[in-house]
Amino acid sequence: MDPPKNDGSVDDNNGVDYVVHYKIPAKGTVLAAIESTPSAFILANVPVEKSEAEAGYIELIKALTTVGLASEVRRATKDSLYVFVKIASTELLQNQIYRSRLQDWLHGVRSASPNQDVAKTLENEPVTEAERLRLVYLMMIKPENEGGAGITENAGKWKYVDAIFPLQNRAFNKAWISNWSGKWLLEESEIHDIREKFGENITMYFVFLRSYLRFLVIPSAIGFSAWLCLGQFSMIYAIATCLWSVVFFDYWKKKELDLAVQWGVRRVSEIQQPRPEFQWEYEKEDPITGEALRVYPPMKRLQTQILQVPFALACVIALGTLSLTAISLEIFINEVYNGPGKQYLTFVPTVILVVCTPIISTVLMSAAKALTDRENYATVDAYRAALIQKQFVLNFMTSYMPLLFTTFVYLPFGQVLIPALDFWRRTAQAITFSKAPLATREFQINPQRISAQMFYFTVTAQIVNFATELVVPYVKQRAFAKAKELQAKRGEETVQDNPEEAEFMKRVRNEYEMDVYDVTEDYREMVMQFGYLNLFSVAWPLAPCCFLVNNWVELRSDALKIAMSCRRPVPWRADSIGPWLQTLGVLSWLGSVTGSAIVFLCSRDRNGDRGGASNFTAWGLLLSILLVEHFYFLAQIIVRTVLDKLESPGLQKERKERFQMKRRLLQDHLGQDVAERAAAPGIETSEKITRAALEEEARLTSIRGKSSPAEIFWQRQHGMQETIDVGRTFITQMDTKNGNPASAAHPSPKA
Amino acid sequence: MDPPKNDGSVDDNNGVDYVVHYKIPAKGTVLAAIESTPSAFILANVPVEKSEAEAGYIELIKALTTVGLASEVRRATKDSLYVFVKIASTELLQNQIYRSRLQDWLHGVRSASPNQDVAKTLENEPVTEAERLRLVYLMMIKPENEGGAGITENAGKWKYVDAIFPLQNRAFNKAWISNWSGKWLLEESEIHDIREKFGENITMYFVFLRSYLRFLVIPSAIGFSAWLCLGQFSMIYAIATCLWSVVFFDYWKKKELDLAVQWGVRRVSEIQQPRPEFQWEYEKEDPITGEALRVYPPMKRLQTQILQVPFALACVIALGTLSLTAISLEIFINEVYNGPGKQYLTFVPTVILVVCTPIISTVLMSAAKALTDRENYATVDAYRAALIQKQFVLNFMTSYMPLLFTTFVYLPFGQVLIPALDFWRRTAQAITFSKAPLATREFQINPQRISAQMFYFTVTAQIVNFATELVVPYVKQRAFAKAKELQAKRGEETVQDNPEEAEFMKRVRNEYEMDVYDVTEDYREMVMQFGYLNLFSVAWPLAPCCFLVNNWVELRSDALKIAMSCRRPVPWRADSIGPWLQTLGVLSWLGSVTGSAIVFLCSRDRNGDRGGASNFTAWGLLLSILLVEHFYFLAQIIVRTVLDKLESPGLQKERKERFQMKRRLLQDHLGQDVAERAAAPGIETSEKITRAALEEEARLTSIRGKSSPAEIFWQRQHGMQETIDVGRTFITQMDTKNGNPASAAHPSPKA
Repeated sequence: MDPPKNDGSVDDNNGVDYVVHYKIPAKGTVLAAIESTPSAFILANVPVEKSEAEAGYIELIKALTTVGLASEVRRATKDSLYVFVKIASTELLQNQIYRSRLQDWLHGVRSASPNQDVAKTLENEPVTEAERLRLVYLMMIKPENEGGAGITENAGKWKYVDAIFPLQNRAFNKAWISNWSGKWLLEESEIHDIREKFGENITMYFVFLRSYLRFLVIPSAIGFSAWLCLGQFSMIYAIATCLWSVVFFDYWKKKELDLAVQWGVRRVSEIQQPRPEFQWEYEKEDPITGEALRVYPPMKRLQTQILQVPFALACVIALGTLSLTAISLEIFINEVYNGPGKQYLTFVPTVILVVCTPIISTVLMSAAKALTDRENYATVDAYRAALIQKQFVLNFMTSYMPLLFTTFVYLPFGQVLIPALDFWRRTAQAITFSKAPLATREFQINPQRISAQMFYFTVTAQIVNFATELVVPYVKQRAFAKAKELQAKRGEETVQDNPEEAEFMKRVRNEYEMDVYDVTEDYREMVMQFGYLNLFSVAWPLAPCCFLVNNWVELRSDALKIAMSCRRPVPWRADSIGPWLQTLGVLSWLGSVTGSAIVFLCSRDRNGDRGGASNFTAWGLLLSILLVEHFYFLAQIIVRTVLDKLESPGLQKERKERFQMKRRLLQDHLGQDVAERAAAPGIETSEKITRAALEEEARLTSIRGKSSPAEIFWQRQHGMQETIDVGRTFITQMDTKNGNPASAAHPSPKA
Repeated sequence: MDPPKNDGSVDDNNGVDYVVHYKIPAKGTVLAAIESTPSAFILANVPVEKSEAEAGYIELIKALTTVGLASEVRRATKDSLYVFVKIASTELLQNQIYRSRLQDWLHGVRSASPNQDVAKTLENEPVTEAERLRLVYLMMIKPENEGGAGITENAGKWKYVDAIFPLQNRAFNKAWISNWSGKWLLEESEIHDIREKFGENITMYFVFLRSYLRFLVIPSAIGFSAWLCLGQFSMIYAIATCLWSVVFFDYWKKKELDLAVQWGVRRVSEIQQPRPEFQWEYEKEDPITGEALRVYPPMKRLQTQILQVPFALACVIALGTLSLTAISLEIFINEVYNGPGKQYLTFVPTVILVVCTPIISTVLMSAAKALTDRENYATVDAYRAALIQKQFVLNFMTSYMPLLFTTFVYLPFGQVLIPALDFWRRTAQAITFSKAPLATREFQINPQRISAQMFYFTVTAQIVNFATELVVPYVKQRAFAKAKELQAKRGEETVQDNPEEAEFMKRVRNEYEMDVYDVTEDYREMVMQFGYLNLFSVAWPLAPCCFLVNNWVELRSDALKIAMSCRRPVPWRADSIGPWLQTLGVLSWLGSVTGSAIVFLCSRDRNGDRGGASNFTAWGLLLSILLVEHFYFLAQIIVRTVLDKLESPGLQKERKERFQMKRRLLQDHLGQDVAERAAAPGIETSEKITRAALEEEARLTSIRGKSSPAEIFWQRQHGMQETIDVGRTFITQMDTKNGNPASAAHPSPKA
């Protein structure tokens, strides 16, 4: 009935922008000393938390209303409320959007300033769901001094605000997922749709995944051919992968910049929202905008950041010891031990790893978080980047340690493991209490070990990962729902909804139960995969093919995850894949080192002459590393030069817009003629000026009576024609050998 | 008498901006077949060139006048003219300046648009000599379709235009040079003065030299201490130099950007003038400005550029063979030969080098020029950069080849020289015709060789260079003047000037005789020196001290050169040291490789165990190169990160200007309130909006009669207070275990 409203709202959700889940603690009591008689205290339970929660609730509604958000409250569960939030009026929304776009322009995110007329601006560039949701969220979480309600989840005075989430756009999700099945890859129009619904941050991930998937076709083809023709450990394959990673890295760097410009979000990372937990020490004036800037002394931060070194060391030691233990035990069992129960004992190291890695990781992860908290970053982005960096160190250790160990310790210096193996032998002897020597084989270095590991990481781990990522949450969710149903059947206290809203409320509860989607996890998975490919795939060239298949599924499963099994994420903007870009670069470089090392160490062994450290030459290894690494650097320079030469449609568009904006401004401000003057210089009236000016000068000189030497100098020849005539006279005189040079120098045209 | 004119003219020069030296060829004749009788031709001399020159002269004056330049002509010598050029009127100059500043703004060189009022613009930012001279020069040389006179020196239809040069500002030069003597280094005010007089291009060189000189203090101190305490070939010194070069390179990169911003010339390299010789194949629209752009297909250019590979190979082969010959001969004579005449024969290799290097260099240099010409660049800057790149290859070979040879061939694989030495032995035997074996010593590798070479390159070569650079031109000039005088005394035909102008004309002739200053040469010298320091100074740690002294003199001698012994250069702008920056980076990196190699190769030999290839381990060499190189990369990353964190005053200023310009535009265009809205969001009226909007909605709904589910959903609670009340009811009910949850879910505040 109504005309389509240009306000980015979703009708299917009753117009709800956000749902705030507000916990009311179960009759929380505090043991307090109450003065019963003047001289005696008794301890009694006082219901403190609940009243605190109630006061907080009132404050919440007030804060929401103050910034212009309408709210409705419903019972969520028996001990929590849902506060539904939407923006109070279209006018307010338009105001917010216009303001945000102006801010973008001021900070250089947009090249063209928004139209003076709010309505026209919104018509030229309609409000998207993502923009609406982002702005409403910002209204809720921005600090009060910046005009927001200052609500923070689970923190400070908002500790009972358990979750703030938007509702899924079911119609879009359904169409999206069903659209998916018939297609090979994401199309541009779909990217556009995802961007409008989920914001640039998530769209960037999908575009990254798509680009990566497309690029994977090349190493897959090379890997498959190498597997067929060259076998494992081929230097050609190592160099091709190295080259490929350089091209992919630089391609993506260019591509993401281009995307950011096309999406109008370039430099958006510079104006991210402040971190509420940030503690500043003093204020100073922002040198650019002139606004007050809250500062934490960078030197103080640096002091904390230096703690990253012991942190990294702790990671290396803790996870390294664990790996070393597990690996040496595994080698002992698989390659030395030959006694009874071998088929069961094989699993012992895996069990050790599976049990201990998460424990150690969790401890280190919380250390990383504590460290990042202490580093006290001013913006959410900086905090996140610092945390991701630390997490990457951890992930690097847990993921690549076994393979790195095999490459750089086991293969070249396998003999150094003998003490460790002896230790296990003695331990085994001690455990079994048998006096008879353990049944063992002689230890030999097995170069196929790295291939087996690689197979495990590319195939087994990917399948396990897929299961944990998609199947487990689904099962969990189903189980929860079932449990709820049973609970309801058993007549336990549940919340009865208004019949008209029952369906909607059920959906809200359902979405609340879902996991929180974190795009970082998906990036991490892809980046770690890129690392396996670059660092170790030379040991098993079919790896890229597996990754290709995996990622084709991943692209779909990630979409399913966002649309079906997670809460809808807040549609943030992003102009880059952020800290992951740097990580990709590091892995790409490391690939050139490990790739050549693996080839050198293993390809010799394949030729039959096995047997340890003696028969490989250190200088050969170092030389091959040196050569491939420098090939990598050279390739990087060439690829960058070539890519720089290529035109980037987004950047070009931006520059064009800027240029035209300036020209338009010129025309508006300075009048048409000035603009033209600037655009196409051309002097038509200059001859007139020359003559006129010279004559004027002559007149002035004669008035003044006395001429300066310069004036005399310039009046010897009056006007162009005289200069020409005098010059011609000079030229003619040059022939006359006997002509009088003295008089020739001063022909007087006036005479 | 007059108020100081704001037009950048120099009174001392009679107001002359440029002098054009126009050659009239000596009665040039062409042997032409003239039909004397219908059946017979006779050959006769026809004076073609001279009339051509005369026609060209007329065209020159006309072209100058058309673009608005006044001209005066004088006789220069017996077969040439001086055409004096100045801009015709102050109004025209102001027009040109305003237009050029507008263009700058359009292309993003300036952040603030010039004031609408021309006079005010010139008042805010007065015209400098450099700006005036640059614009007048551009008026002369710009192609006609861009509004210039299209004059090119010595080319095409202007082949008789021998030179175009501005006149020195004697007063300034005198003050500058005399000011110099009392000072240790350039001061900021002097830099400002140089910039106003000689333009940013030359000023950039001086600032670079100053920064480099200041930085040199550090390696000088380290080098001196190393020389005292550690001796030669110290790894500590090598690493310190490596670190120093990283810091210097990145410091300068930041500094030059900052300077460019402060001087208002950032991105100026993007709008350099077109190259007249450029041949385009088709036109296309500039995607940014929309103007017609002349294009030469980049792929075609790339095809030509690939020829650089054979060119580089030719350089390596030609200069390599020469070096190899000279070096092996020198080694033979100095270290093997022990016969008669040794003291004279020592000079033979040097003579070979001194004679042959310039010949081969000249041939290769003209090949480089021809190659660059064929690459057909569109702009002067691109052409120059390509030429400099090729020249650098040449220079690299001639300068570093002997030292690189010593480092990477003589020291590690000295024994491979034995065949070459045998060849010389046999040759010597053949030449002397003696049957008796030549008096020789046994060949031994002498690690001090590299130090001796280094000493030669740092001390001897610098002194020789200083002499050729400053003393030779001075002597030459004096000799010329003397010759002229003698000529005049002998009563040979000279040009008699107007007595009032005689002094001025003498000066003009004097300046014409001077060399053309090329800043490239000075950059090359400094960059090659930086290379010596980085690549080889570990062999002789006193080198930086010598360079420090040399450059302190260089700073002065270069100023002297520009002011006294060269024609005044055209004051171009520049936003960087151009292709030299890249060269510095390459040398800095190479330094990490050669430095560690030299240390490894020589420090072992110092410990007594000399004697060739057997006693150094290849893996040790490779490992030390690998380690130091990676130290270099790590240092680069750290230094860049730290420098990025530091605030750059120039960039900050630019960003501030841009921000303020935008805000000003906002205020101008959109009115104060919008600007404030954008600057400081704050919602005061939102509560009212919320209430009012909701009530309005309710009214509309009741009018329509039928409500949508969403409307019903949002009308359950009217306004903030109701939401609070309902929520509180919910919270209270959560206690009452036996309360009716169904009714609890829907308290009706209206009832």
